Amino acid sequence: MSQHPVRLPGKVRAVTEPAVIPAGFLFFSGRAGIKKNGENDIGIIVSEVPCVTAGVFTRNLATAAPVLLSRENLRLAKRHRAIICNSGCANAAMGKAGMKDAELMAECVAHALFCKPEEVLVASTGVIGEKLLVDKITNAVASIFKKPDSSHAGFARAIMTTDAGPKTARACVNIGGKKVKLLGVAKGAGMIHPNMATMLAFIVTDAAVGKPLLKKILSEAVEMSFNRITVDGDTSTNDSVFLMANGSAGNSPVRSGTADYKKLSGAVSEICASLAEQIVADGEGAARVAEIRVEKAKNPAEALAVAKTVAGSLLVKTALHGGDPNWGRIIASAGRSGVKLDIDKVELYFGKYCAFRNGAPVGKESVLAREMRKKKVLMRLILHRGKAEASYLFCDIGRKYIAINADYRS
Amino acid sequence: MSQHPVRLPGKVRAVTEPAVIPAGFLFFSGRAGIKKNGENDIGIIVSEVPCVTAGVFTRNLATAAPVLLSRENLRLAKRHRAIICNSGCANAAMGKAGMKDAELMAECVAHALFCKPEEVLVASTGVIGEKLLVDKITNAVASIFKKPDSSHAGFARAIMTTDAGPKTARACVNIGGKKVKLLGVAKGAGMIHPNMATMLAFIVTDAAVGKPLLKKILSEAVEMSFNRITVDGDTSTNDSVFLMANGSAGNSPVRSGTADYKKLSGAVSEICASLAEQIVADGEGAARVAEIRVEKAKNPAEALAVAKTVAGSLLVKTALHGGDPNWGRIIASAGRSGVKLDIDKVELYFGKYCAFRNGAPVGKESVLAREMRKKKVLMRLILHRGKAEASYLFCDIGRKYIAINADYRS
Repeated sequence: MSQHPVRLPGKVRAVTEPAVIPAGFLFFSGRAGIKKNGENDIGIIVSEVPCVTAGVFTRNLATAAPVLLSRENLRLAKRHRAIICNSGCANAAMGKAGMKDAELMAECVAHALFCKPEEVLVASTGVIGEKLLVDKITNAVASIFKKPDSSHAGFARAIMTTDAGPKTARACVNIGGKKVKLLGVAKGAGMIHPNMATMLAFIVTDAAVGKPLLKKILSEAVEMSFNRITVDGDTSTNDSVFLMANGSAGNSPVRSGTADYKKLSGAVSEICASLAEQIVADGEGAARVAEIRVEKAKNPAEALAVAKTVAGSLLVKTALHGGDPNWGRIIASAGRSGVKLDIDKVELYFGKYCAFRNGAPVGKESVLAREMRKKKVLMRLILHRGKAEASYLFCDIGRKYIAINADYRS
Repeated sequence: MSQHPVRLPGKVRAVTEPAVIPAGFLFFSGRAGIKKNGENDIGIIVSEVPCVTAGVFTRNLATAAPVLLSRENLRLAKRHRAIICNSGCANAAMGKAGMKDAELMAECVAHALFCKPEEVLVASTGVIGEKLLVDKITNAVASIFKKPDSSHAGFARAIMTTDAGPKTARACVNIGGKKVKLLGVAKGAGMIHPNMATMLAFIVTDAAVGKPLLKKILSEAVEMSFNRITVDGDTSTNDSVFLMANGSAGNSPVRSGTADYKKLSGAVSEICASLAEQIVADGEGAARVAEIRVEKAKNPAEALAVAKTVAGSLLVKTALHGGDPNWGRIIASAGRSGVKLDIDKVELYFGKYCAFRNGAPVGKESVLAREMRKKKVLMRLILHRGKAEASYLFCDIGRKYIAINADYRS
């Protein structure tokens, strides 16, 4: 990978980690002073050449300013150069002032890169309802740009809020004889922190691919990953997933329906799935992750409805915390999912062990308990209504969740 | 009120509490040995004369056997004589054996009262997925029937599971020159216990009223009370509300649309509202109750949708536990309610103090915190879209909730 050719004010040049970072991308990180603990709080991704970008955003109508701005900038510009992300402040629920601050973040990066402000995307994460001290960011950007990081690790740390650690995933696929790299970085803790609004993911690839196809690939991957995890049922004001593709790998552009398309979309899906699972698994107090897999449903929609209801049940989450194979809670939550189940025909398994069949309990408590105490628990609900299936990932809710969320602002 | 004229095997007769219990009803309680702690676990309500009865039941498709049987018996018989309720075991998720056990409960009461089994209704509450030791119940019924309680307090205690205390409500209205009494008894703890399936309410009145009208009165009252409270979002397999009216007050039957109808339905609504609030307020660890009142909505459905989403948010519940006026969580949950809000036009108040307006925070933290630390917190979300409003009651979720629910079966 080349040294960074972006027209930056600084003079220092560093070689970035060629083995991991897709060609033509640079990662920067530094400190603006937004986070109160003195840690780095700014991460910037730059593409050496303008690249196509897709974004998927929160559907919460209390949308944060950076989400509104990024959505608008994706529409305004055909290609983009950079994403800037700050942690420590969500810049959400701040009215018109918040929008102005998000614009200033984009403008200061655009100024440094000699590009248009709409070619820069913005993400923020941290406390909702606090003024973003944007001057600190605009003052810091010039010095942050002086030296790209040698790896993506600095960026991954700078965007963390309550995360126990950085979350990254990568993939490499061969497309038309060219080695194409993908790298994803995310933040978000399993015990989703309300005001720590909340889940951000940034994926970059050096593949050459058109913008409509990139959008399709990202939407499908998000639907099967980030949209199938739940911690506490709340949706953040700031959730965003970005996918940038700059074509630096030199492959001929990926076309829909081809083997190359399958490879690229498969790699993006894998990265999203890995980041989503890392988010669920992270978090203070989260003892374990569970997958609820609904099988033999009449159609995918009903499979998903049942899986989502079980994964969203606070009673199931607390049983998971206690390692208690409390099958009654799973059956009861399936029963209120809105799907017209015949409970007497439903079977429930923990791993390969049956817990409930013919409307009554079966199985040995000690065997089921062992399954429920694994680091990753598999719950299978077999509806016997058809052939569709769907999965949902979730984590337990424990004492620390309450401690963190009850006393969060104290 | 007369001494009990039901044809019971026993000889002892007692005068029941005339001031409180509606004429012609008898309350019994005793111990069958279902509860492991040795406390009373059987409650029976008998009407001296056959009475009209209405029931509203859980919509959970994992329906417990007693609910299935009571629903069937309400259809089979025009009038009913008694309800038997056991605590300590929900008789849920037990397949055909559970149905047989529920039938045996009805039969032993019918035998004692010389009535048909379908004239007896059944309710159970306690652990899901455990076999009901029905022989203990059938053996105990004869001795329980020997002596009616002098008040309803014994019944109220016998049906408790994890309730901190009994829950009762009463009313007295004048209908056509006759004094009509109403008495309600409920069980269910704010920190809804999953396997302690879960909420039961029994309301009796000596009013004379037809069955279709009684059903309408109960449905409307339940919709505005028990259906507008939430603890943790899970719906039990056993939830039931019964309303019996035996006509012993001697009023001429209440007709729809009259002033008498309004008085009677008003009294039933008040009793349901009181019992519902007692359920929310009860529960280990529940520090306070909150009402989320959504005002100036376009229509009642959207007011209810927003209220329900806020009341169901775990983040709002934990903030309530911490006494933290964390308005961002309320705004964010309203934003994901599915209602097309313009967040910039929404106003949020704690009590009479505004916290959020024009898309940005207002108000003094210390003032808002004082409101949030009251025993009963009022949150008002003003949508400025129309004239409709709706309320939802909920309680906080605290450490004890987790402790109880994670380690429940350990």
